[in-house]
Amino acid sequence: MPTPQLNDIYLARQRIEALVRRTPMEHSPSLSRLVGVPVYLKLESQQITGSFKLRGASNAVAQLSAEEKQRGVVAASTGNHGRALAYAASRQGVKATICLSQRVPANKVRAIRDLGAHVCIVGNSQDDAQREAERLAAEQGAILLPPFDHPAIIAGQGTLGLEILEQRPDVAQVLVPLSGGGLFAGVALALKTANPQIVTHGISMQRGAAMHASLAAGHPLEVEELPTLADSLGGGIGLDNQYTFSMTRDTCDHLHLLSEASIANAMRHAYREERQVLEGAAAVGIAALLEGLIQPRGPVVVVISGRNVDTDQHLRVLAGAEA
Amino acid sequence: MPTPQLNDIYLARQRIEALVRRTPMEHSPSLSRLVGVPVYLKLESQQITGSFKLRGASNAVAQLSAEEKQRGVVAASTGNHGRALAYAASRQGVKATICLSQRVPANKVRAIRDLGAHVCIVGNSQDDAQREAERLAAEQGAILLPPFDHPAIIAGQGTLGLEILEQRPDVAQVLVPLSGGGLFAGVALALKTANPQIVTHGISMQRGAAMHASLAAGHPLEVEELPTLADSLGGGIGLDNQYTFSMTRDTCDHLHLLSEASIANAMRHAYREERQVLEGAAAVGIAALLEGLIQPRGPVVVVISGRNVDTDQHLRVLAGAEA
Repeated sequence: MPTPQLNDIYLARQRIEALVRRTPMEHSPSLSRLVGVPVYLKLESQQITGSFKLRGASNAVAQLSAEEKQRGVVAASTGNHGRALAYAASRQGVKATICLSQRVPANKVRAIRDLGAHVCIVGNSQDDAQREAERLAAEQGAILLPPFDHPAIIAGQGTLGLEILEQRPDVAQVLVPLSGGGLFAGVALALKTANPQIVTHGISMQRGAAMHASLAAGHPLEVEELPTLADSLGGGIGLDNQYTFSMTRDTCDHLHLLSEASIANAMRHAYREERQVLEGAAAVGIAALLEGLIQPRGPVVVVISGRNVDTDQHLRVLAGAEA
Repeated sequence: MPTPQLNDIYLARQRIEALVRRTPMEHSPSLSRLVGVPVYLKLESQQITGSFKLRGASNAVAQLSAEEKQRGVVAASTGNHGRALAYAASRQGVKATICLSQRVPANKVRAIRDLGAHVCIVGNSQDDAQREAERLAAEQGAILLPPFDHPAIIAGQGTLGLEILEQRPDVAQVLVPLSGGGLFAGVALALKTANPQIVTHGISMQRGAAMHASLAAGHPLEVEELPTLADSLGGGIGLDNQYTFSMTRDTCDHLHLLSEASIANAMRHAYREERQVLEGAAAVGIAALLEGLIQPRGPVVVVISGRNVDTDQHLRVLAGAEA
């Protein structure tokens, strides 16, 4: 399949318009004061299923043929993609099987089961879960929908970029959580096509940032998965990555890596100043601002990617912990 | 001024369309399971300024004449109305003065100052603050905008009812926090005009529910203000109440009073199951469902009115406290 273009994002939007929520763009007085330019939070944490992943999953399911829909879909996921795919499939009358590693928090597993999907739990890493999903696709004929490296997923996530353009057409910089790159590639495609001067920041955690290591090496690399508050950003980008590696390489102006302490601090800031419950992965943009890593050129839009944090962990972080 | 009609709500919406957010209607799996019918949360906690009050305040400011706008607006408020009016006035280029009692939490005072309004803090009750606002209006010629008993405020809050009709036209029951009755009267007007069969529930706290006591007595009563988690629902309805008392009397099918323990439990539920930070007043609808006070006839829409809780208090509640 060809690499997505801006037009694919518009096509995606038409397909998923009735299936996803147009999320708010919220001015942040506290961060604006801190940085010295207007800062806005794109609250994708308020998307249905609690994360941006619903956009890509809804588009991917909508693009299946009637015969493929009959066979059902299968995916490996650290949680949010699985949850989104379970919901997207059920909304469109398609059966879904979600493969998860044992590392995935219990609240995310329960949420996926609640959405009517079959869940299988295997192995200790995203890669183990991915292999199981591939096995099920080969043996049972289900359609494998990868979490990020797929044109329909990237185009679906790109609809978030269109909303940023419409809600803040004067955006100067955008901060996007960076993991496998589906969100980053889609959003950056929309923004850079509209205006190449918009500065893009891809933001990851220090503990196991596969895209960062791969970009530094010039090709996809495997990295060790480590426990992190930003668990949704964990996992490799795939040694046979076909889309997101090159798209991210071509559209990302700055990369930043954040410590666990910094991510925890950003989660506390989001709670105290914005009354938002955020998962660690969603707080990395705020963390980069709090760390002073971003030049004061605004308006700055911070993509807040999801809220599916384990609340016991969240309460520990609010009480001052880093894990 | 005449009592508002449905058409006034449509006029209000046209005025405030660009000034307020259309908030999400979110399915709640946990509450739906509990009650046995579909339950949806109308998340007005995600309104700009963090509460529904922006709707009424924006409409009231927009209805002023050019000469009145010149004179500025003044209001007494337990917090959310003041915050909303400060923002609404500033968006429309009008000067605002907000009078608060010493009971209002510090975070709310700061937020109002941040929005550019002049704040004066007087007395120990909403009534003291109200008298000061009236004095300033008389002495300085500013326009007094009361928090609820005003046709423009009621019509503005009623736009929330229109959104409920559009997002859940099959709504069978609606649960609305009840204090002075501006929100309740506006929402019930929209819903009952569209379909008198929709069952309306007005929900207050046991500690100082002025509208409940007034309806029981058949006329507006003063009640003692008491500390409560639902501080946004505190304050009297005014002995010379002109609109909300009779409108609430005519459109409210059921009244419920909730204990502090029940409200605290609902705040914890909202955090753990919905990842929502809610002020106590906003959690009373969830509390009524958790207490089993509502017949299982759905869909049920629960109006979640605001998120402007002091986070120290919120953390205490999450840890098990009731204050």
